[in-house]
Amino acid sequence: MKITGRRVITSSPENSETPVESFRTWVTPTNDFYVRNHFDSPSLDVANWTLDIAGFVERSLRLNRKNLDSMSQTDLFATLECAGNGRSFLEGDVPGVQWGIGAVGNAEWSGVPVRDLLELAGIREGALEVVFEGSDSGTEGGADGDVRFARSLPLDMALHPDTLVALRMNGQVLTQEHGYPARLVVPGWYGVASVKWLRAIQVVNEPFRGFFQSVKYTVKRKSARGVREEVVGMMLPKSEITRPRHGECLAPGARLVEGVAWAGAEVVAAVELSCDGGESWRRAELVGPQKRYTWTNWRIEWEPTRHGEYQLLARAISDSGEIQPGRHNPLHGGYHINFSRPLAVSVADSGDKKPLVFSI
Amino acid sequence: MKITGRRVITSSPENSETPVESFRTWVTPTNDFYVRNHFDSPSLDVANWTLDIAGFVERSLRLNRKNLDSMSQTDLFATLECAGNGRSFLEGDVPGVQWGIGAVGNAEWSGVPVRDLLELAGIREGALEVVFEGSDSGTEGGADGDVRFARSLPLDMALHPDTLVALRMNGQVLTQEHGYPARLVVPGWYGVASVKWLRAIQVVNEPFRGFFQSVKYTVKRKSARGVREEVVGMMLPKSEITRPRHGECLAPGARLVEGVAWAGAEVVAAVELSCDGGESWRRAELVGPQKRYTWTNWRIEWEPTRHGEYQLLARAISDSGEIQPGRHNPLHGGYHINFSRPLAVSVADSGDKKPLVFSI
Repeated sequence: MKITGRRVITSSPENSETPVESFRTWVTPTNDFYVRNHFDSPSLDVANWTLDIAGFVERSLRLNRKNLDSMSQTDLFATLECAGNGRSFLEGDVPGVQWGIGAVGNAEWSGVPVRDLLELAGIREGALEVVFEGSDSGTEGGADGDVRFARSLPLDMALHPDTLVALRMNGQVLTQEHGYPARLVVPGWYGVASVKWLRAIQVVNEPFRGFFQSVKYTVKRKSARGVREEVVGMMLPKSEITRPRHGECLAPGARLVEGVAWAGAEVVAAVELSCDGGESWRRAELVGPQKRYTWTNWRIEWEPTRHGEYQLLARAISDSGEIQPGRHNPLHGGYHINFSRPLAVSVADSGDKKPLVFSI
Repeated sequence: MKITGRRVITSSPENSETPVESFRTWVTPTNDFYVRNHFDSPSLDVANWTLDIAGFVERSLRLNRKNLDSMSQTDLFATLECAGNGRSFLEGDVPGVQWGIGAVGNAEWSGVPVRDLLELAGIREGALEVVFEGSDSGTEGGADGDVRFARSLPLDMALHPDTLVALRMNGQVLTQEHGYPARLVVPGWYGVASVKWLRAIQVVNEPFRGFFQSVKYTVKRKSARGVREEVVGMMLPKSEITRPRHGECLAPGARLVEGVAWAGAEVVAAVELSCDGGESWRRAELVGPQKRYTWTNWRIEWEPTRHGEYQLLARAISDSGEIQPGRHNPLHGGYHINFSRPLAVSVADSGDKKPLVFSI
């Protein structure tokens, strides 16, 4: 059985998942890193490619790849997760790509801070948001005619020194499916913010109402002013169990339960594991790098006290104390799917002579 | 030592807490129920008192107490908590009433649904919010001249059948400090929404920007459109340990840890207790009524395995899966103080002959 390589959900456009084996390496190999494309991925000729900085600025700029390469580069690690990751586990028939657990990955990104580009252009007084336009466009349900992929950030996020026009991923030039020759990377935010195949950065003085932050990629939220629609932004705390696997039958005796957890722009402060469907919880050991923006691997020893069925649950806790919830919030529709999902395993009787089945 | 009766924090205006002993009775005795007054409590003569229903309505109404008594009455239990409850536990010098744990209580409220009054008046097309005006006014830091206590609800919350003009508390006519002759009760919302000494209900067609929901009683929140100011509304999940008490020295051996938990408009689904500062957690037993809007008592047996110092932590989980956080969110300033707060106890050596000290 093929362990590595992306798990294809849809092929045109490509929507494919990171295999669980590549959750265990902390840095996801580029070829295993999930791909979420809304349209066919544009094949751009870097010789003719340019990036425009325009809109509510003192002076418009048109930069080519050489201009960007010659500027000061920033490297950082960031986990990106699709806002719809886990959608297939929701009750009912929720429209959209039917993601399992794998629309998430962790990589090193290198490039030029957007701030440096905006400082070159000069932001005019009254600027509110910055719109990032991709080179990809096409038809989408709910849109009239062709729609271009574009997303905005509030000005302070666009100016955050870690918001990058990334030129490289894991030390190599970006691959086509990951946005060659240049993509946005917004650490801590759901992947939709990290626009690929960038062609323009537009400073605007009013809220941007593009298709991918009005018709799609919004959630509802109750407030003292009533139910509000909000644009999908920061990633919420979430964890996954990578070992054992759902449905696995285990030999009796002590074993490691292993997994990964992330918490948006924050460091993961703790992960808790329950082996009894949520009755009791123990704190897992965090292993490997523990950095803001990135996921953290974890493990904990578990010795089943009897044979039979078990329900394992993990939950992530962010540095600010936010805890992964136990249920999906229906106001979030097909996004923000970060509830702790039970993983069922069975432990064999020590006298059981049947061969054990291991799934991956 | 006096066990019952309110614990006075400030006396003019009265701001006083529910004693912890009255957390254990599920229904808080009226005289023990916390009082949060912004101004001196008005002494109203019911013979001259009226309630106006006005603003963006088909016909204005002026009702007296007899009119309200003659209408169909609704009874419900609801826990009210002050949005600043627990402020004294925050780091730094956070301005405002320095509440401990006791600005919370649970009572039965009886009265007329606001919906019935608004239906009599007839809501006009385009109505957005409903403003509830109290009879209390005075000077407040940050306000020019006198300010009247008033709060709004979005129209759908005002029309919710459980939003009441309450005339009775725990089966008796409201006492003066709890809003006689009539107060609003908004189950699930922080107490500030439940305007006392009601004198007018105004339907409006634009957002109400009163002092108590613009200068005071707001929190900040990060969104994909930037940091937003929001009006304090729904109560967040929270729990308190009522036994043992902070600083208590305990005899060795098994004992019950007891407490109470609430979750805004939701039922409390679970409470978890940690006796090791958050390393491991066990699910407590919920005891007594488990109803939406109300707190729930809980208990769990704990047998310390050694003598010495322990840190106890409890956390509430709402029916929708929201979990009480481990840290205070600094964006919430002096409100929404629902983090799990460590309770320190020591367990005596079994050979220890010193008398044990019990605090309440």
